[in-house]
Amino acid sequence: MASNAKNVGILAMEIYFPPTCVQQEALEAHDGVSKGKYTIGLGQDCMAFCTDVEDVISMSLTAVTSLLEKYKIDPKQIGRLEVGSETVIDKSKSIKTFLMQTFEESGNTDIEGVDSTNACYGGTAALFNCVNWVESCSWDGRYGLVVCTDSAVYAEGPARPTGGAAAIAMLIGPDAPIAFESKLRGSHMSHAYDFYKPNLASEYPVVDGKLSQTCYLMALDSCYKHFCEKYEKLEGRQFSISDAEYFVFHSPYNKLVQKSFARLYFNDFLRNSSFVDEIAREKLSPFSALSSDESYQSRDLEKAAQQVAKHVYDAKVQPTTLIPKEVGNMYTASLYAAFASLIHNKHTSLSGKRVAMFSYGSGLTATLFSFQIREGRHPFSLSNLATVMNVSGKLKSRHELPPEKFVETLKLMEHRYGGKDFVTSKDTSLLTPGTYYLTEVDSMYRRFYAKKSDDITANHTNVSICGNGPVVNSH
Amino acid sequence: MASNAKNVGILAMEIYFPPTCVQQEALEAHDGVSKGKYTIGLGQDCMAFCTDVEDVISMSLTAVTSLLEKYKIDPKQIGRLEVGSETVIDKSKSIKTFLMQTFEESGNTDIEGVDSTNACYGGTAALFNCVNWVESCSWDGRYGLVVCTDSAVYAEGPARPTGGAAAIAMLIGPDAPIAFESKLRGSHMSHAYDFYKPNLASEYPVVDGKLSQTCYLMALDSCYKHFCEKYEKLEGRQFSISDAEYFVFHSPYNKLVQKSFARLYFNDFLRNSSFVDEIAREKLSPFSALSSDESYQSRDLEKAAQQVAKHVYDAKVQPTTLIPKEVGNMYTASLYAAFASLIHNKHTSLSGKRVAMFSYGSGLTATLFSFQIREGRHPFSLSNLATVMNVSGKLKSRHELPPEKFVETLKLMEHRYGGKDFVTSKDTSLLTPGTYYLTEVDSMYRRFYAKKSDDITANHTNVSICGNGPVVNSH
Repeated sequence: MASNAKNVGILAMEIYFPPTCVQQEALEAHDGVSKGKYTIGLGQDCMAFCTDVEDVISMSLTAVTSLLEKYKIDPKQIGRLEVGSETVIDKSKSIKTFLMQTFEESGNTDIEGVDSTNACYGGTAALFNCVNWVESCSWDGRYGLVVCTDSAVYAEGPARPTGGAAAIAMLIGPDAPIAFESKLRGSHMSHAYDFYKPNLASEYPVVDGKLSQTCYLMALDSCYKHFCEKYEKLEGRQFSISDAEYFVFHSPYNKLVQKSFARLYFNDFLRNSSFVDEIAREKLSPFSALSSDESYQSRDLEKAAQQVAKHVYDAKVQPTTLIPKEVGNMYTASLYAAFASLIHNKHTSLSGKRVAMFSYGSGLTATLFSFQIREGRHPFSLSNLATVMNVSGKLKSRHELPPEKFVETLKLMEHRYGGKDFVTSKDTSLLTPGTYYLTEVDSMYRRFYAKKSDDITANHTNVSICGNGPVVNSH
Repeated sequence: MASNAKNVGILAMEIYFPPTCVQQEALEAHDGVSKGKYTIGLGQDCMAFCTDVEDVISMSLTAVTSLLEKYKIDPKQIGRLEVGSETVIDKSKSIKTFLMQTFEESGNTDIEGVDSTNACYGGTAALFNCVNWVESCSWDGRYGLVVCTDSAVYAEGPARPTGGAAAIAMLIGPDAPIAFESKLRGSHMSHAYDFYKPNLASEYPVVDGKLSQTCYLMALDSCYKHFCEKYEKLEGRQFSISDAEYFVFHSPYNKLVQKSFARLYFNDFLRNSSFVDEIAREKLSPFSALSSDESYQSRDLEKAAQQVAKHVYDAKVQPTTLIPKEVGNMYTASLYAAFASLIHNKHTSLSGKRVAMFSYGSGLTATLFSFQIREGRHPFSLSNLATVMNVSGKLKSRHELPPEKFVETLKLMEHRYGGKDFVTSKDTSLLTPGTYYLTEVDSMYRRFYAKKSDDITANHTNVSICGNGPVVNSH
């Protein structure tokens, strides 16, 4: 028999992004491109990046430890821990096993779950898996923990300003303020080469930007179709945009989110023209006869749809865009960082509302799903979630570095990618107390991390975490 | 509310391994090592390997297509498809997305699931995820499909004879002949560097053989402890080896399986000496005072335990060893190939029996879990499962290649790993009709596969599968 867990979903969240960032405006000037190319063309404000002391493992250690500490969760209460990531540091050993160091002291090793992989979708896969576990016969009453962690970096060229970095940890269990509507879920999965990482020796992906955008929009259409079909079967009436209070999108760059919401709006118009207002009907009708292939290529449609959907976008999407615009593409963490922005902006007012979520991973895998939001009980209440994440505080305390420093850092990391036998700068001056950082990769490729002391007056006495296995192998 | 699905588990299985193999005895002579080093020392008979036309993607395409065809499953009936693998061809694009080509014609793109990664454990993670899905609120009544696919290759040296290759596809649903006992499950997960793949440009792992064996045995002890605790809580009495009819182990090489079962036997002796016979008590008592660290290092204990457990091993483990000994280490597929050997050897007589399964992935993640076996209803009956898998037929129709050819192939694959812009030999002469094979990797790293015609009289007219995405991108 399956478990009796009800309203399973996200109980609590923590987000971490590097304190080091570069302004997109400064990057425009540095790159010698036209003013507004990144800020208006891509819709991005700022981009976080890891310096040589941070990576996806250190960021996820920081996010997990911080969540457990802030919510006073005993590590023994965790029964499942899984990670979504597409930033490969080791092709066999999962990031999850690195995170098990956090649980060593408690003696809790009975924690299921590994890493889920498909581009930016791995975090959603991990989240679905964890929720299913709580609803399954295997659930033992403990919490699940889902971690999304990625560092998005690109070779020099037009894709470079679409980078970013972050880790998000989510606590999963029943009676959650952010509960899944499991019956409303439309997926679209197919074989595509829009963005992939076949050059194993390089950290950079192979990207076909135009193809990837078309794949994203095609997948969105298909997911929306499945989602609407399921809604209609369940509720006995058509779904339209007005049936969800907010729409959260995977956000490689904000411009694509604007286009995507406009695309949903165009879908509503095609499905039932009474779903949109008089002006929109007029502006969109010239495009109603386009084949779907033509519709993906039509700039005029794109413009018209964005224009007529603008007022709905401002209400239903804009409150979700803060962190993705300020931090950049966080791959698996991107969708959940957008959702965190919504919690930050709307917190208690979300209670009783439906939020639609669109997850996309190139290659490709995509799902449109939804949450029912409830106030929740302390410490797992919307207001406390917003307070603990402290998005404003984290954004404000960042350090803007000049583009030259960003380029220099990426050069160094290119050189070190997949490498061994080096010591990092160990420069933690820009890191917040409590942040994990990489100190060394030894001659056997073993990675060593330390934690910047929480005690600000004594942050030179950092705690060291051994990179070794359980058998004595002293370093 | 969760689903009402009962007895969720494996409904059907298909196994595929390359028809090309090398005898371990021939390899011993070729490598100039002492006779018996691989055959007795490792306990291995033969090793399968992929030639330049096969890889983890082609093998999984073959296994999935074959399972759907043989069981006449409409591709639209699949609602979830996930893959376990540690053989990385692309760091972002999942193997699952390649498999979506199989579903294209049916128009079914609403199929959840991605790839799960942690060394040899990824298949078990995928299997647990899929079973949980069927038991969760998200289940829509369709089948799940789990694929384990790996090619294990090692640099020249002592680990090389522990290679192998295979893909296994498993159909998941309720009322299964192979049903999970979800409440009996002990996991052990921790941070270790026993086997890993940090050198991203190389297909070969970094291996510490001795450490990996100790990690495996430590994880086994810990999982067994958790498993026994849960059994006792549930059943009100102690678990012992006699409570399961068969024990199936992840099998890097057969010798480790022998040691592992002996280790469980030693555990039983320590837990309650009445669990073992008089002679065993006598032989094992000198070791009862060893610390656990000492016990992993004691050769004398290892020998004594194997000796006294031999008769139980022959009954409870030997029937599971055929494919792993003949094909080699199949990483994620290894445990399920061992289980397939048991179905092959014992089929209908398994009905009503409990089978214990130990899954291990370096890094490390491990779980001991169990199945309750029932006869099942056609086509998902034990006898039909054995007939369809046709293990004897597949083993008999293989082609033994000389060690020189094996070494030459690995050299070629070393050179091609992570490469682009090449055409394979397209030599399908040794492949069975219906087998997928790699024809080309283009200048954009896109991979193209074809299927050897099922019609033996016309196997030169092979069907081509396009490696492109959904948008026209003609090749």
